[in-house]
Amino acid sequence: MPDVSLLDAFPTPSDEPFVIEHVADEFTSVCPKTGHPDFGVITLRYVPKTAKNGGTCVELKAYKMYLQSFRNEGIYYEAVTNRIRDDLAKFLQPQWLLVKTDWKGRGGIRSIVRATAGSVPETWLH
Amino acid sequence: MPDVSLLDAFPTPSDEPFVIEHVADEFTSVCPKTGHPDFGVITLRYVPKTAKNGGTCVELKAYKMYLQSFRNEGIYYEAVTNRIRDDLAKFLQPQWLLVKTDWKGRGGIRSIVRATAGSVPETWLH
Amino acid sequence: MPDVSLLDAFPTPSDEPFVIEHVADEFTSVCPKTGHPDFGVITLRYVPKTAKNGGTCVELKAYKMYLQSFRNEGIYYEAVTNRIRDDLAKFLQPQWLLVKTDWKGRGGIRSIVRATAGSVPETWLH
Amino acid sequence: MPDVSLLDAFPTPSDEPFVIEHVADEFTSVCPKTGHPDFGVITLRYVPKTAKNGGTCVELKAYKMYLQSFRNEGIYYEAVTNRIRDDLAKFLQPQWLLVKTDWKGRGGIRSIVRATAGSVPETWLH
Amino acid sequence: MPDVSLLDAFPTPSDEPFVIEHVADEFTSVCPKTGHPDFGVITLRYVPKTAKNGGTCVELKAYKMYLQSFRNEGIYYEAVTNRIRDDLAKFLQPQWLLVKTDWKGRGGIRSIVRATAGSVPETWLH
Amino acid sequence: MPDVSLLDAFPTPSDEPFVIEHVADEFTSVCPKTGHPDFGVITLRYVPKTAKNGGTCVELKAYKMYLQSFRNEGIYYEAVTNRIRDDLAKFLQPQWLLVKTDWKGRGGIRSIVRATAGSVPETWLH
Amino acid sequence: MPDVSLLDAFPTPSDEPFVIEHVADEFTSVCPKTGHPDFGVITLRYVPKTAKNGGTCVELKAYKMYLQSFRNEGIYYEAVTNRIRDDLAKFLQPQWLLVKTDWKGRGGIRSIVRATAGSVPETWLH
Amino acid sequence: MPDVSLLDAFPTPSDEPFVIEHVADEFTSVCPKTGHPDFGVITLRYVPKTAKNGGTCVELKAYKMYLQSFRNEGIYYEAVTNRIRDDLAKFLQPQWLLVKTDWKGRGGIRSIVRATAGSVPETWLH
Amino acid sequence: MPDVSLLDAFPTPSDEPFVIEHVADEFTSVCPKTGHPDFGVITLRYVPKTAKNGGTCVELKAYKMYLQSFRNEGIYYEAVTNRIRDDLAKFLQPQWLLVKTDWKGRGGIRSIVRATAGSVPETWLH
Amino acid sequence: MPDVSLLDAFPTPSDEPFVIEHVADEFTSVCPKTGHPDFGVITLRYVPKTAKNGGTCVELKAYKMYLQSFRNEGIYYEAVTNRIRDDLAKFLQPQWLLVKTDWKGRGGIRSIVRATAGSVPETWLH
Repeated sequence: MPDVSLLDAFPTPSDEPFVIEHVADEFTSVCPKTGHPDFGVITLRYVPKTAKNGGTCVELKAYKMYLQSFRNEGIYYEAVTNRIRDDLAKFLQPQWLLVKTDWKGRGGIRSIVRATAGSVPETWLH
Repeated sequence: MPDVSLLDAFPTPSDEPFVIEHVADEFTSVCPKTGHPDFGVITLRYVPKTAKNGGTCVELKAYKMYLQSFRNEGIYYEAVTNRIRDDLAKFLQPQWLLVKTDWKGRGGIRSIVRATAGSVPETWLH
Repeated sequence: MPDVSLLDAFPTPSDEPFVIEHVADEFTSVCPKTGHPDFGVITLRYVPKTAKNGGTCVELKAYKMYLQSFRNEGIYYEAVTNRIRDDLAKFLQPQWLLVKTDWKGRGGIRSIVRATAGSVPETWLH
Repeated sequence: MPDVSLLDAFPTPSDEPFVIEHVADEFTSVCPKTGHPDFGVITLRYVPKTAKNGGTCVELKAYKMYLQSFRNEGIYYEAVTNRIRDDLAKFLQPQWLLVKTDWKGRGGIRSIVRATAGSVPETWLH
Repeated sequence: MPDVSLLDAFPTPSDEPFVIEHVADEFTSVCPKTGHPDFGVITLRYVPKTAKNGGTCVELKAYKMYLQSFRNEGIYYEAVTNRIRDDLAKFLQPQWLLVKTDWKGRGGIRSIVRATAGSVPETWLH
Repeated sequence: MPDVSLLDAFPTPSDEPFVIEHVADEFTSVCPKTGHPDFGVITLRYVPKTAKNGGTCVELKAYKMYLQSFRNEGIYYEAVTNRIRDDLAKFLQPQWLLVKTDWKGRGGIRSIVRATAGSVPETWLH
Repeated sequence: MPDVSLLDAFPTPSDEPFVIEHVADEFTSVCPKTGHPDFGVITLRYVPKTAKNGGTCVELKAYKMYLQSFRNEGIYYEAVTNRIRDDLAKFLQPQWLLVKTDWKGRGGIRSIVRATAGSVPETWLH
Repeated sequence: MPDVSLLDAFPTPSDEPFVIEHVADEFTSVCPKTGHPDFGVITLRYVPKTAKNGGTCVELKAYKMYLQSFRNEGIYYEAVTNRIRDDLAKFLQPQWLLVKTDWKGRGGIRSIVRATAGSVPETWLH
Repeated sequence: MPDVSLLDAFPTPSDEPFVIEHVADEFTSVCPKTGHPDFGVITLRYVPKTAKNGGTCVELKAYKMYLQSFRNEGIYYEAVTNRIRDDLAKFLQPQWLLVKTDWKGRGGIRSIVRATAGSVPETWLH
Repeated sequence: MPDVSLLDAFPTPSDEPFVIEHVADEFTSVCPKTGHPDFGVITLRYVPKTAKNGGTCVELKAYKMYLQSFRNEGIYYEAVTNRIRDDLAKFLQPQWLLVKTDWKGRGGIRSIVRATAGSVPETWLH
């Protein structure tokens, strides 16, 4: 099941703000209604707090393990998106954060869900 | 015939607003004038109310069944678009909602129809 | 010859405004100067009046027959564009309407003509 | 249900063999196991017998009506392909004939089925 | 109606065989069953006889007028293809000749018809 | 040599303003320095005056003849562009007009020249 | 774990041989060495025996369930490919069969594995 | 070596401002550090002064000779860009001018340098 | 290890500001957690100070050697980005500078990191 | 340095021959002449011996470590290709094996090198 304790972080290497984006192409979870697997692409985009304010960056291998912990979880698209947004926002305490999930078709329907934390600038919203 | 009772929903998983988009590539209904089948792509985009305000998300398999209920209905492009907009807007009571229908050519004419409920931000309008 | 009596309409299915677009890929008329056939793509985009204001939508098969009535008419690109704009604007009395005609090359020259009725929002102009 | 009596034909216009290909992009039938609609592209390719041997060509509007008669039929991909092959081969008695069906994904699986009658030359097989 | 007397030719300029191809993008005729216009692309490909054998090439403006003479003719795809093949083969007496007609979709079905005269090499067949 | 007397016009068919665009893909003139031929694409875009103000549209075959009159003229890219702008602006007296010339490479250098008359709206400038 | 008992079949609908191809885009299993998930595309291509010889076709939903049974299995690419080949060849007893697995990159390395049963014609091998 | 005396000009043909762009695809110079050849694309974009103010246009063949004079010059990308900008700005005295140089990879690094003279409108900057 | 002493510069060749961009397609460093190599594309974009203010440009071969000094360094994506930004900003003292790093997938996750120094105009930010 | 002891294998899972292909997109070594890094794509394609003959398959993570052992080796393209061919052919003793290396440009020259062991069928040679 989704396990936030798998997440790890390291101190941001700078006192300057900068934009980080991770695109995970191989996410899979399970539909809570049908029990069939879902497949999606998870994009995480955020600006950490500065180093002097204790800003942190998510460690990539830990983040991968965290995403893999959804593998056998029965969970809706919308809940996946909000869960990752909530977990990462709480864990990283970034200046802002966006989670976008892009799901392959199921029953002929493709879906995209976006959730944000903090104030995401227009230029980083899509 | 189009059957709104097929729709199902679940509570939105968050108190934060977020944007949901479902693209159904395999919609079909029937032309009320000629009796020939019509084929189109239906895009539904909306922001649910927050959880504390009783916001709901449309359940995807139920939504698919709802779309399938148009299969043998004789109905114009314009009416399909408004019917889905009306049914979903009433059923979900979202903050805003957009329905866009994109029809394959019939008699050498391709068509696109868009209908909205609530105040759709410019950035989500196309 | 162009025959506006071929047009047919049905009441708009909604009291909400919505945007309708029809793209006819197979229009043909005749050059009044050379007698050679012209081939073009005709795009019609409009917002009908609301139902309570007696708004109407053009019926697609009738619209196709209307476009076919130009088949052996000797008429300039510019006149085709304005004629369709005038006929549809008068027949539908829409909130606004755009006609764009895109002509395949003749003598090595391709042409595009646009005409509007009412106040077309910038975002729908091209 | 699939209705071969809808088919119509006209005498081939030539004593020379020639190759005819019809690609129907908007075929739909129903899965006999799940009851959900299937969507596919049907390609028919054949060489009629010559006129002096009584060769015939399938009339296109009738062929469309025949394909539409599968709309609410519960039938497997493989059976659709063989059924069309059998019906057309019997009805047209062509020199050779190929039916290729290309199905949109269902449950994440796309399918292609090919069936032939007579001796299809290598160059027309794919 | 299709008028072969519109065709004109000039002597081939060479004693060497060479391949000529004309692609007419703007052909239109009429469906004999529905009365609706058909739109297609006509490809003519041939090798004239050599000059010393009296070989001729089709004059392009005359060929255009010949194709335009189909404009209001009710005629099937297959008959158009064979008619052009027969007319050109008789008129030009080429070493070989291929006519390929590629028709825009009607009722969701696209069609391609090929007819040949003489022995068309494999490499020029598609 | 460039011959403005070849131009012909017809009265604009409407009292509404509309945008006309002609793209001539096969323009050729001669480099005044090297004597080599130049090849370019000439785009003419304009809004005629309204009918009640005596607005006129350029007749397409006459415009083609006018463009062909540059065929053996030794003239720079820049002069071609301004000459066409001046001739058409004087002849049509439009509300505004843009001439854009796009030249194929000569000596490894491609060129684009734009000239305008009247006040061209930003949205039509490129 | 991979469960061949999930497979289901139905009698082939024809006494003519025909070619069936299923492409599963969303296959996932687990690397037996690292424990990380693998993602691949599985193509199954085969010709069933004829009906009079007891030929059978794999039922698509059952095949999907069979593929899903690899989800948490630790198994090499090569073993997945041979396992599916062996299971399907034994279950369907086809005239010939090809399994092709196409794996997304892991550690910067993409892999493709092909296994066959019976005599696959050259034209169907890639 | 770069030789500004190779440049030639002719009077601008108009009193109206207009935009001229030359794209030279085959520029080459030499790296001053390694002695290896560099290859780049040079874009020159400018608006000449009007005719009554003595505006001039660069003559294209002379400009090509000027660019060729860099062929054996050891010179940095940045210096090429500024040198051309300076030479042309001084020679033409335009209203404004942009030089953009786009360099093929050297040692796995591709480079783009832009320099301007006068006030380049936003719309012409990229 | 990353060695800033490898950097070299030359005086900017101009008193005019201009924009320089270097795209290094073949950067590699090592993941500090797993020891596996990382591969990325490094984009450096900056405006040097003017010549009279002692502006300098980075010398390209030296910059390449500097980038190569990361080859065996264990360092996070975020730290690479900020390190290059810091080193170049300190070494060049530019008006502004942007470093964008685009990393090939590792464990199915692709990443993009952007860091800036000084005030980067909106138009150069992406 | 290249270290064949890093390679690992597992028994082939089948007594049937099958074709395995691994494409490594992120290979890097060092040019022995200039000391600069080289970047290439390494394709390994082979058929293992059958299980009863003791056939083995290369383990993918070990193979990755083996490829990484070239990272700081000064070695020519041709030597890389033959070295990998020799190491793998000796280690796996396959029925046949192909190594293809595809190198990114250096000094404007891209290179491809192929080496084989055993008798590679024509159809797998490219």
